[in-house]
Amino acid sequence: MTPDKKSNLSLFFEPRSIAVFGSMKEPLGEGITAMRNLLDFGFRGRVYPISRSNAEVLGVRAYPTVDAVDEPIDLAFVITPPRTILAIIEQCGRKGIKAAIVATEGFAETGPDGARLQRELVETAHGFGMRLLGPNTLGVLNTAHGLVTGAYRYGSNKPPIGGVSYCSQTGFLTFGVHPIRDLGHPISKICDFGNKCDLNEADLLPYLADDPSTNVICMHLEDIKDGDRFSRAAREAVARKPVLVLKPGRSEAGARAASSHTGSLAGDDLIYENAFKQAGVIRLRTWREYWDIPKALSLQSFPKGNRVAIITATGGAGVMLIDAAAEAGLVAAAFTPLTRNQLGTISPRLANNPVDVGPLMSLRDAPFTIYEEVVPLVLSDPNVDCMTIVCHFGQPIVKVLTGLAPQISKTGKPVTVFGYGIDLPDMQKSAREIEALGLPAYLDLETAVKALAVGAAYSRMRDGLAEGTR
Amino acid sequence: MTPDKKSNLSLFFEPRSIAVFGSMKEPLGEGITAMRNLLDFGFRGRVYPISRSNAEVLGVRAYPTVDAVDEPIDLAFVITPPRTILAIIEQCGRKGIKAAIVATEGFAETGPDGARLQRELVETAHGFGMRLLGPNTLGVLNTAHGLVTGAYRYGSNKPPIGGVSYCSQTGFLTFGVHPIRDLGHPISKICDFGNKCDLNEADLLPYLADDPSTNVICMHLEDIKDGDRFSRAAREAVARKPVLVLKPGRSEAGARAASSHTGSLAGDDLIYENAFKQAGVIRLRTWREYWDIPKALSLQSFPKGNRVAIITATGGAGVMLIDAAAEAGLVAAAFTPLTRNQLGTISPRLANNPVDVGPLMSLRDAPFTIYEEVVPLVLSDPNVDCMTIVCHFGQPIVKVLTGLAPQISKTGKPVTVFGYGIDLPDMQKSAREIEALGLPAYLDLETAVKALAVGAAYSRMRDGLAEGTR
Repeated sequence: MTPDKKSNLSLFFEPRSIAVFGSMKEPLGEGITAMRNLLDFGFRGRVYPISRSNAEVLGVRAYPTVDAVDEPIDLAFVITPPRTILAIIEQCGRKGIKAAIVATEGFAETGPDGARLQRELVETAHGFGMRLLGPNTLGVLNTAHGLVTGAYRYGSNKPPIGGVSYCSQTGFLTFGVHPIRDLGHPISKICDFGNKCDLNEADLLPYLADDPSTNVICMHLEDIKDGDRFSRAAREAVARKPVLVLKPGRSEAGARAASSHTGSLAGDDLIYENAFKQAGVIRLRTWREYWDIPKALSLQSFPKGNRVAIITATGGAGVMLIDAAAEAGLVAAAFTPLTRNQLGTISPRLANNPVDVGPLMSLRDAPFTIYEEVVPLVLSDPNVDCMTIVCHFGQPIVKVLTGLAPQISKTGKPVTVFGYGIDLPDMQKSAREIEALGLPAYLDLETAVKALAVGAAYSRMRDGLAEGTR
Repeated sequence: MTPDKKSNLSLFFEPRSIAVFGSMKEPLGEGITAMRNLLDFGFRGRVYPISRSNAEVLGVRAYPTVDAVDEPIDLAFVITPPRTILAIIEQCGRKGIKAAIVATEGFAETGPDGARLQRELVETAHGFGMRLLGPNTLGVLNTAHGLVTGAYRYGSNKPPIGGVSYCSQTGFLTFGVHPIRDLGHPISKICDFGNKCDLNEADLLPYLADDPSTNVICMHLEDIKDGDRFSRAAREAVARKPVLVLKPGRSEAGARAASSHTGSLAGDDLIYENAFKQAGVIRLRTWREYWDIPKALSLQSFPKGNRVAIITATGGAGVMLIDAAAEAGLVAAAFTPLTRNQLGTISPRLANNPVDVGPLMSLRDAPFTIYEEVVPLVLSDPNVDCMTIVCHFGQPIVKVLTGLAPQISKTGKPVTVFGYGIDLPDMQKSAREIEALGLPAYLDLETAVKALAVGAAYSRMRDGLAEGTR
């Protein structure tokens, strides 16, 4: 029986009900921890803890088996020892469950015995038309549904509901061990592929491309299971939304390490590089880019060209940003004579890009009001496609940007904000407040322009694809 | 009269007394703000506020002119309007003051009139054998002396006393607007060159090379005033301690922006690149590298070779670090058979580099104890020159590293730590605690190995210089 590939995926991300298999022992049993995470996140569906020894778990009625549950169950989350898994999957299959996340470690990643067990797992599941995520995975997260799986505690680590969906081959690049709440990442869905015994990147791409809650797809891949299917799926997804990929193994040593980590051949990096290019997938290079660039593409539109304006309170940062912009594929916008004249009437020292407003600020009683004049003026220049604003993070700029945000939004041109200051908690607070206005905020200088460059690259790419299909 | 170039510099960084010129009006007068900063930082010398309208300022006796002060004065800090500066410098010169920081803006950076005034300023000062820092500068900071100048409030933004000395051509890359305290940067001295009317990089290099409190020199330069003198000074400094330089203007657009910012020609980047190489200066590329790499070289010794070991609780991070290491010029260490055997007795899955301890951690009651076994074992391998440890930041790893730090230190091999987690304030707290043990801690993945690579590059460079002089 071949599982229905498409319809089943929503069972993983939008299940109406979940059965949880795992130790329900307080305080740290894997099952009860998974239950606690679901309750903390405010899961919108019904939860059925499966336990022979408990009548209830955390106030939720427990069942000795899934058969004892009267209602249908959409998803099973399983974190029990490897030797117990096949029987549980059979039990779930007989109940009619069509989706299961096997979180347990100890399969293909441990050697031949584990690999054999993993094959049996897949055969058993597919025999019931059931799809599998994992094994060796944290599972999934869906902010809109209060859904989170996994057996580590991340109680309150729930990010704001947003448009970025992440898929990763390591829990390290998912919700498991990143401060996604504190950093305010605007998240739709997150998926940890684990060993990819069944579901992989080529399955997730069409699902996320169709998903109206996702507007940016960002993946971490150490290998690609089916190159042709991935390329087709990526090309179709890219026509609709940006697909960004962090693919380590760029160096030979890195490729060897990847192959030892995932157990599959990482392959020649050049082949991946070309495949990504052909599919219109944009490749990210660093951990920071993986986390910090997607939000800019999610919160704003894409630059229609590659001409960037920098408005800065410090000339030194302006110079560095122009350098970083050039290296990322942007060019410093050359303002129209009209803009130069208008800037000149504010001050003769303002006509150039980067626009260094610093010296003027010290002459004003309300220094930050200079941004209110300069930002709309420069952003409306037809030679400007996008902008980075550099400012001291704190209440004054939050107030000014609160006023400017609607005007910025109206221009349809993306703007990122890089902030500095002397009080780190204060800066982080300002960053979150600025992002609540829809403006991506950065505490890392180069990333603020790199994010615009990736948006511009996507915009160019998509136009190219549209061109090609005419 | 030619000022004595060398002896005067200690007057800027270790003055026994400072005269402060500037508005003493509460709450935000520039003079009183400078005074407040000095008192907050616990300046070790005497302070003389110069004010005709106040008998005292913040409880400190004020004087109408410097002549009224009986004792000798080492340094003048001046932040008064441009038109008043020459008279003040004359007054200071007559008093015998040999060092002055002119913080005031409005000189060469504003055009020909300002440039003329700046030339007069230099002539006046040099007429008295007085050296000048600035104008248009925040001035200096010296952690060991509680010295800080400048007219912005940074009250408690005082970093720990350490070995890194920063010099920058923009206040943005000094103490003015970076959370150096919250980020725990181990600082010796910081200098904002401002317009470099007199003191510049070629003066600071020999002073900092001689300074026993400085073990790493890190500079931000938009231009270099005297290429030959800089090269000689840099070469001599590099023989004694690392000299790192962030030089924007790598792109043509960036060079243009720099030239418009500093008013001087930035020049062809290739010329700088070659000059740095010949002098043994290591070039940094980004804002983050400028802030985060020097501390690693300051807290630890330099790798004797370029072979790095990665000990990680997450295989995914290990792969990415090997990639980043290769791109930064390191190679993944190939362990000796002895090390492989010893690792194998802990677990057959441990023999490779990166050493992924993650799967073993989940099998232990005290998961972090695995680091106690693996770190010393791998670090003592003769094929390993340096190491990055990847771990969940929190109390367990701080405890383990507290025990390991003396052993690590004994090997003489540098170790950096990259940490992850879900609670950002908690991670930042752990990072500071780990650095208090002498281990540089990072919340940015690639920087953790890049720092080792820069140390290894310096080590190679220095050996090359020693070779050349034989």
